[in-house]
Amino acid sequence: MGVIKNISLRLAYDGTEFYGFQRQSSLPSVQQHVEAALSGIYGRNIRIYGAARTDSGVHARGQVVNFYGDDTIPVERLPYALKGSLPPAIVVLSATLERENFSVRHDNKGKHYRYTLVNDGVPDPFMLRYAWYIRKPLNCESMKEAASYLKGTHDFSAFEGANTTPMNPVKTMYGIFVVSKKNRIIIDVVGSGFLYHMVRNMAGALVDVGMGRKSSQRIKEILKGGDRRKLGATAPAQGLCLEEVYYSSERLNQALVALEAGLDTV
Amino acid sequence: MGVIKNISLRLAYDGTEFYGFQRQSSLPSVQQHVEAALSGIYGRNIRIYGAARTDSGVHARGQVVNFYGDDTIPVERLPYALKGSLPPAIVVLSATLERENFSVRHDNKGKHYRYTLVNDGVPDPFMLRYAWYIRKPLNCESMKEAASYLKGTHDFSAFEGANTTPMNPVKTMYGIFVVSKKNRIIIDVVGSGFLYHMVRNMAGALVDVGMGRKSSQRIKEILKGGDRRKLGATAPAQGLCLEEVYYSSERLNQALVALEAGLDTV
Repeated sequence: MGVIKNISLRLAYDGTEFYGFQRQSSLPSVQQHVEAALSGIYGRNIRIYGAARTDSGVHARGQVVNFYGDDTIPVERLPYALKGSLPPAIVVLSATLERENFSVRHDNKGKHYRYTLVNDGVPDPFMLRYAWYIRKPLNCESMKEAASYLKGTHDFSAFEGANTTPMNPVKTMYGIFVVSKKNRIIIDVVGSGFLYHMVRNMAGALVDVGMGRKSSQRIKEILKGGDRRKLGATAPAQGLCLEEVYYSSERLNQALVALEAGLDTV
Repeated sequence: MGVIKNISLRLAYDGTEFYGFQRQSSLPSVQQHVEAALSGIYGRNIRIYGAARTDSGVHARGQVVNFYGDDTIPVERLPYALKGSLPPAIVVLSATLERENFSVRHDNKGKHYRYTLVNDGVPDPFMLRYAWYIRKPLNCESMKEAASYLKGTHDFSAFEGANTTPMNPVKTMYGIFVVSKKNRIIIDVVGSGFLYHMVRNMAGALVDVGMGRKSSQRIKEILKGGDRRKLGATAPAQGLCLEEVYYSSERLNQALVALEAGLDTV
């Protein structure tokens, strides 16, 4: 065993066939697969820590994890070395040597989630695993207005999933962007942190507004009221993707500027 | 039973889970699913004819089929009426009433196939079902040059799959476009007609050139020589998609102009 090193991995995964990121006793999770692959390489049990706990069926293009490995394998070789022992739906994009006490969870400056809707008269068979299909045309302008009320610093208790461990409900949404593009509507949310099911509850609420079932003013009131039961259904998991976790304010600001300008950062 | 009508359907399908378009004795095919759904609606056996026979694992965004139904169901209601009895991976995009002797196979003016490569240091987990992953950077310029030799009217025997029923090997390729875009290389082929495995053999040959295993001149020679055994491996099915079948020269020309200009027609 070499000198202990704190190493981070950037991961992309198609979440369709995993029971979420977090290790479960017997069900296949992303964490379990990555830990098994790393343990195989280092010849001892390796435990990883994730920047975000994506749910069952939720995807990631930029999840970040860290673990304490050692220097027996050059860090830049890790993506390649792990390839053979991971399922093809989990890809290690890069590996980085970090300072000793760096934590992917505590040291991040924010995260970018994307929720994708297919909004067309006909479904898109290539997006079944990656979007929520809504047949009826959504009013994108009223969705944008509702999104603007969710921007900024608020107590997001009304958007928290049921039965969760208590956590500080005050979060800052740096930007929420609703863009219509071909047969899709894309909701990009960049925030300081997120409660359990928060982005999916936001997406569900915005769809309610787009369908005319709720006014954008109603969303503002529900946010202020803090009562989860006033909100509609949680949007399905397959539309959600963790796009990026930010570890510097510069990178976070760059991403916000690009999203504001309508450039695709993904 | 109402008055017999010749009806065409435009279909999109994710080919991953089907044994190709064509009906097989016991394996699930696109044809079998669509025929079963139509037969259920009309209450008698309906047989469909396809514009192209896509192989097992090959996708379509614009397959066209026709069949003899009747006027008991308004044609414009068919996409919706079929939805419930088709698997979600097969979508009817539109239905059109055709003249009595219209044939999707014999009356088309050409077809557009797209072959997608992921060409990046790391695979893309979201493209596993829809692209061929090539790790090593491909030389896109030499692929373009090789593609230019395949354009025009040629005897394409060297690009025909093995063990096929004989058919006229002279086909016209109106345009072959190789475009590099983010982590992908896209090969668009628009032609008058295609031999069995022809686009996948073209894609395999272009990848050989991009890897430096063959020169673009060599592709020219193989085309002239007409010997299939000189060619490399057939590119895998999952990268191929039947994008459109053209029924007017105007639409075909529009599509060529758009592809030439680098606009995405898909």
